[in-house]
Amino acid sequence: MSRIDRRTLLGAAGLALAATGTRAAPEGPGGTGPAAAAPAADVTRTLARYLVGARFADLPEAVRREGTRTFLNWVGVAIGGSHHATLDVAVSALAPFSGPPQAGLFGRPERFDIMNAAFLNGVSSHIFDYDDTHLKTVIHPAGPVASAILAYAEMHPVSGADFLNALVLGVETECRIGNAVYPNHYDVGWHITGTAGVFGAAAASGKLMGLDEQQMVWALGLAASQPVGLRESFGSMNKSFNPGRAAANGLFAAILASKNYTSSDGMIEARRGWANTVSTKQDYREITEGLGTRYEAALNTYKPFACGIVMHPAIDAAVQLRDENHLTPDEIERVSLKVHPLVLELTGKTAPRTGLEGKFSISHAVAVALVEGAGGEKQFSDRAVRDPVITALRGRVAPVVDGAIKPEQVDLTITLKDGRTLNRFIAHAIGSVERPMSDAALARKFTDLAEGILPDPQIRRVLDLCWRIETLPNAGDVARAGVQA
Amino acid sequence: MSRIDRRTLLGAAGLALAATGTRAAPEGPGGTGPAAAAPAADVTRTLARYLVGARFADLPEAVRREGTRTFLNWVGVAIGGSHHATLDVAVSALAPFSGPPQAGLFGRPERFDIMNAAFLNGVSSHIFDYDDTHLKTVIHPAGPVASAILAYAEMHPVSGADFLNALVLGVETECRIGNAVYPNHYDVGWHITGTAGVFGAAAASGKLMGLDEQQMVWALGLAASQPVGLRESFGSMNKSFNPGRAAANGLFAAILASKNYTSSDGMIEARRGWANTVSTKQDYREITEGLGTRYEAALNTYKPFACGIVMHPAIDAAVQLRDENHLTPDEIERVSLKVHPLVLELTGKTAPRTGLEGKFSISHAVAVALVEGAGGEKQFSDRAVRDPVITALRGRVAPVVDGAIKPEQVDLTITLKDGRTLNRFIAHAIGSVERPMSDAALARKFTDLAEGILPDPQIRRVLDLCWRIETLPNAGDVARAGVQA
Repeated sequence: MSRIDRRTLLGAAGLALAATGTRAAPEGPGGTGPAAAAPAADVTRTLARYLVGARFADLPEAVRREGTRTFLNWVGVAIGGSHHATLDVAVSALAPFSGPPQAGLFGRPERFDIMNAAFLNGVSSHIFDYDDTHLKTVIHPAGPVASAILAYAEMHPVSGADFLNALVLGVETECRIGNAVYPNHYDVGWHITGTAGVFGAAAASGKLMGLDEQQMVWALGLAASQPVGLRESFGSMNKSFNPGRAAANGLFAAILASKNYTSSDGMIEARRGWANTVSTKQDYREITEGLGTRYEAALNTYKPFACGIVMHPAIDAAVQLRDENHLTPDEIERVSLKVHPLVLELTGKTAPRTGLEGKFSISHAVAVALVEGAGGEKQFSDRAVRDPVITALRGRVAPVVDGAIKPEQVDLTITLKDGRTLNRFIAHAIGSVERPMSDAALARKFTDLAEGILPDPQIRRVLDLCWRIETLPNAGDVARAGVQA
Repeated sequence: MSRIDRRTLLGAAGLALAATGTRAAPEGPGGTGPAAAAPAADVTRTLARYLVGARFADLPEAVRREGTRTFLNWVGVAIGGSHHATLDVAVSALAPFSGPPQAGLFGRPERFDIMNAAFLNGVSSHIFDYDDTHLKTVIHPAGPVASAILAYAEMHPVSGADFLNALVLGVETECRIGNAVYPNHYDVGWHITGTAGVFGAAAASGKLMGLDEQQMVWALGLAASQPVGLRESFGSMNKSFNPGRAAANGLFAAILASKNYTSSDGMIEARRGWANTVSTKQDYREITEGLGTRYEAALNTYKPFACGIVMHPAIDAAVQLRDENHLTPDEIERVSLKVHPLVLELTGKTAPRTGLEGKFSISHAVAVALVEGAGGEKQFSDRAVRDPVITALRGRVAPVVDGAIKPEQVDLTITLKDGRTLNRFIAHAIGSVERPMSDAALARKFTDLAEGILPDPQIRRVLDLCWRIETLPNAGDVARAGVQA
């Protein structure tokens, strides 16, 4: 019997696979994973049982605090991206098909049904690539999860405590599933924020909906059926599409499961399940071990600068020396910095013409940091890369590759016109796990992103609500407070 | 520098990947595909250019005819599944979030926005696993494509000719992309109807929207970002979820692309693109060669019996002998049949208790075929498996594995109580490429599926409109004619 004959029979007799338990031997990537040879038992169900039972009161203080910071950072970047062309296009494209005006968009006046709102806020929050990062997997955790549950919370009032609990559980779910398949899953081409993110969105949404264990198993199964995003799309609007669609897909999965739309029971770990299908590595202990005691959600980080992490040490050093010495551009003769090879490989542009190109110019990043003392979205605008003072200084910035410098390090020296030299070595840039952004710095980032989009009093109010999310009677108030009048 | 450091930097500097053209060496599945070593050029663009330029007048008569049969068969199965619990659950779950009542559901009174309607009709058409099959890939082509474009056609009037052209182009797109990665892609665990189907839905929807070449490239890229479905879900409601969600995702991709929501240019063939990410086999000639001259859409087949193809030869033989000899159950002493081993492996149940279990009982299938002369959904109902005459005869059906019998064959012998024996050898069952169902048989299948759901005059009217789709002034009339008053 030919190969195709066999596929045809099995495919057409689809139900028979489940009904008779027939399983072909593992082939392809799945066959090379340890789990493919001996599938782990009850990974999906173990996770679902934990999600259904986990209570806000069980969360350690540090985890609740990081969850609050995760939420606040996400609201800030969602407001910041809200008037980018990417979102203008998506809003105009989807408006004719939206359901009832159940949920709002940060920084905008339009209202959409909760699935479209989840998509659009998720897109908005990733446009600047300025959101949060779970460094072990490079997942941007908040986008898929917070976008889904805040839209849901606008329609179905939930307390801030329940909301924060669901947010943490969603982040936990996507990061643990990401750990199980990373890095192989990412290396082959998947945009892991969108593929693992669907699980986070389904888990968090399902938690707020009060799914029982079996319904949560089905929600995770329907999420496993809808991975989103390929790395090939980086550099286009498709990149920010991915966390948005992951949020909508996870919410869609939970809504169907809440009405008992069924899936199979072992969709994460089964031989023909998600992990074996999308990765050559499966480490299910990452998903099931230490649930409720070890929190990936506590390892989330936030970007202080609106560009790739590769440039962060240099910007950090420049800002520190500027502020400590009250430097003005005219005092500076030249700037030399020893950097890891990847810095010039990724950000070696010497004459950026647009704000976006500025994100790939280490000399611009250092120059603008010395002039303006920051590395936010405003410092990577068309205005900034064309500013005569910044462009003049940019020409006096000389990065040099040094094999002794690690990617998270920089050794920056400023020579002043009066002959003095100032030096700063950075071992870990601000925003790393070792040197997390302070609450004050997160608040400044939030304000910088929201300025010009919302009035200052409104910015202060939204920021205040984010800090107090844990005690809010109604989490949806944050969404209502963050829209454009 | 550690592996995770590198991933972190690249991941966080996402845009840099595109902006600088930096690419890591192929790893994982992608690295093993021939295309990964030397990516094919312009596969996505070549396909998009063809889709944008292809005209109805270019379609050979045989392709137009098969397209019409594909559409008619799909409408029939969509009506047939419209009152199954799967659809009841999905309709009630999604109703609160639906947009304007832009499109109807076959066999039901509810109306939804076109993306939800595409999802629901797509689910309905796959519930019985009784839809069409592209045997080379086991893709069920109509579900993802027809569900998307008929919903669109209800909102934006299009001629039947343009509709049929888009349907053929969508089927061509998904089957060619399926050929490029099959069987490896299917073997590892993907439900190829949902993963390749998204491309078909995007291509067909984009064609009706009049996308230009670049917009079609983006639509295919956004489709590549949203594969749907794992084989592990077979046997649950999740299986029919997949073609439905593929339809909605493809429509979603085309709608965004129509407003210039961008993606990357080589999402199918790039090193980090779809084919390298989801398969260890990539044969791009299957996608780009013979466009407009060789039509996969002409190879579509339709199931005459509502069960896995594995049982079709036996049912075919039983129906033939019954009709030719006007057999009644009481004349039959016993039935012996020589079958391929897979028949008993997949359908060896001897005492099915439900209609669904009956689909996995070769003895029930033969018995009910001899009693009722058919193998439709009604013959695999709870009523049928409990019918005393059928269950009595079932006990006298004896399947025997014979190594000389191919999976598409059966050798069936009936011994009558008067001593006579009747034999029939089937080389290719009805419904195969070699022995396609006749138009009359397709019409009977349609009528059987619609009976009890729509009034007979309405069934005749919808059937007539399907046969005349090519000349209809407004294709959406088929959707409006097929809803429940």
